[in-house]
Amino acid sequence: MTTDLPTEFARIAQYFRPLAGPGALALGDDAAVFTPPPGRDLVIAADAMVAGVHFLPNDAPDLVARKLLRTNLSDLAAMGAAPLGYLLTVSVPRATDESWFAGFSAGLAADQAEFGLHLLGGDTTSTPGPISLSLTILGTVAPGTALRRNGAKPGDDVWVSGTIGDGALGLLAAKGELPDRNGYLSDRYRLPRPRLALGLALIGIAHAAMDVSDGLVQDLSHICRASGLAAEIHAATIPLSPAARAADRLELCLTGGDDYELLFAAPPTTAEAILAASRATGIAVTRIGTFRAGPAHVTTIGMDGNALSLGSGGWSHL
Amino acid sequence: MTTDLPTEFARIAQYFRPLAGPGALALGDDAAVFTPPPGRDLVIAADAMVAGVHFLPNDAPDLVARKLLRTNLSDLAAMGAAPLGYLLTVSVPRATDESWFAGFSAGLAADQAEFGLHLLGGDTTSTPGPISLSLTILGTVAPGTALRRNGAKPGDDVWVSGTIGDGALGLLAAKGELPDRNGYLSDRYRLPRPRLALGLALIGIAHAAMDVSDGLVQDLSHICRASGLAAEIHAATIPLSPAARAADRLELCLTGGDDYELLFAAPPTTAEAILAASRATGIAVTRIGTFRAGPAHVTTIGMDGNALSLGSGGWSHL
Repeated sequence: MTTDLPTEFARIAQYFRPLAGPGALALGDDAAVFTPPPGRDLVIAADAMVAGVHFLPNDAPDLVARKLLRTNLSDLAAMGAAPLGYLLTVSVPRATDESWFAGFSAGLAADQAEFGLHLLGGDTTSTPGPISLSLTILGTVAPGTALRRNGAKPGDDVWVSGTIGDGALGLLAAKGELPDRNGYLSDRYRLPRPRLALGLALIGIAHAAMDVSDGLVQDLSHICRASGLAAEIHAATIPLSPAARAADRLELCLTGGDDYELLFAAPPTTAEAILAASRATGIAVTRIGTFRAGPAHVTTIGMDGNALSLGSGGWSHL
Repeated sequence: MTTDLPTEFARIAQYFRPLAGPGALALGDDAAVFTPPPGRDLVIAADAMVAGVHFLPNDAPDLVARKLLRTNLSDLAAMGAAPLGYLLTVSVPRATDESWFAGFSAGLAADQAEFGLHLLGGDTTSTPGPISLSLTILGTVAPGTALRRNGAKPGDDVWVSGTIGDGALGLLAAKGELPDRNGYLSDRYRLPRPRLALGLALIGIAHAAMDVSDGLVQDLSHICRASGLAAEIHAATIPLSPAARAADRLELCLTGGDDYELLFAAPPTTAEAILAASRATGIAVTRIGTFRAGPAHVTTIGMDGNALSLGSGGWSHL
């Protein structure tokens, strides 16, 4: 047989093998093999992204790659886990050119360096449809310390990191449906900032945590259901960026997706520790409400002191 | 907000939560958390499957699910690993009905029971394109014992399990392009048999192994490249099913994909141990050739004693 490898193997060799880390066996075997770090629990999650659903078909491939990796890193952040490695499946139309793969792998390389993890394995394949990506992320956490959604207690404060709503507004901006003078909003949509350092710092402090991916109110309702509690948040306290304030789209900010901030529950006695963690990590945190006993339910108090009726509970990808 | 969950969450609860195992946290958190089995290395691999590329758009959803799980289990088998768990991403058109999810999850449930593993996590999403699936599989192996592709030695025999070519012929049969009186061939295409017990039994015996997914000759060339050896196989010794013999499509059998049999290298002194492993596991094995020193290259000797010139080196999904 010829020594010319089919496209699939050549692409793996050219674009993905340089990303492979220890255990990946240079992507040359059927699977990766590694010894798990002793004395640590493993944390593992998988997310899919489809062109036209989770990113715009003409988004730059390096940003698509980084968003894919970062949305998964955000899941690790929500558990208080440290990154270890990832696996990737990439299904692309046959006409996808080399520059797409070059950009995509360059984006991965940049974020591997920034977040300290490596590619462990995966698969590339063709598709007659839009680009379809999936990523499985592996991390570690000290045994028994992972942040969960089900640990909130009555009287806990509701906290959120960063600013809320930029992701949803950024999607509109990226589509040209909202002014975005300096590109701040569309950048926030295209390039999430996983709050790994904050998640790690919240271990032993926060009672519950998750990341805001489907909209603040809907995601808070997940913590409420998992913890068997109600929550009340105050729209006036929701941290908004200057661009979001200017956009004046409060309901979208409360219900839109793609923020990838941390949402967490912690007792008022830990407020000083949380603010110290915020200073240490350089990640802003804001107290936006309270958990209380009662059926799982999120009440959002509007600027006028009355409960808001939100038309959409959040974003579902189905 | 309303307590009616969006479709995505309702489907996870109805179809996927019952499949969740220990560590999956009932699919209710951002990630799964588990303590890796002490004293074992972890083995991890990911594969994607797209409707129209890896399965037929009208294939029954339970068989699609089982094929997805089994092709990944076959990667574990090739490493000599035992299954531990898996994560799943499912991207489907919005019009996909409940019966598809019911069938898909029933297929997973059946194979979870057969192979002894559980769902750890994943993601469901919509797509404007064909159904796109990915699965990441986790397994374990005793440290340092995983079967690799790079360990073949000059003089090793080339062995293969089961029969070769049924997958490629089965695709033709499933498309109605080849007679398939009792459905044997299309069943072999739609439902791979991962050779987990044989892979496990080959630890300490085989020098190298992989699974045949992209065609016997191409996959053997991977072992050759990884091990820095040439190999010669004899067409007359390739194990063919009665249906494959009747089809009389030798070249397709040698180069077609989707067999999911084990291809391995072992010294002649271990032949008795390999036959004993075959008897113990009920999985047939056949010696089909020899590795020798020389540039990485596969020579296939035809029925007439002359080297075959194969038009296609195997199947690439790109």
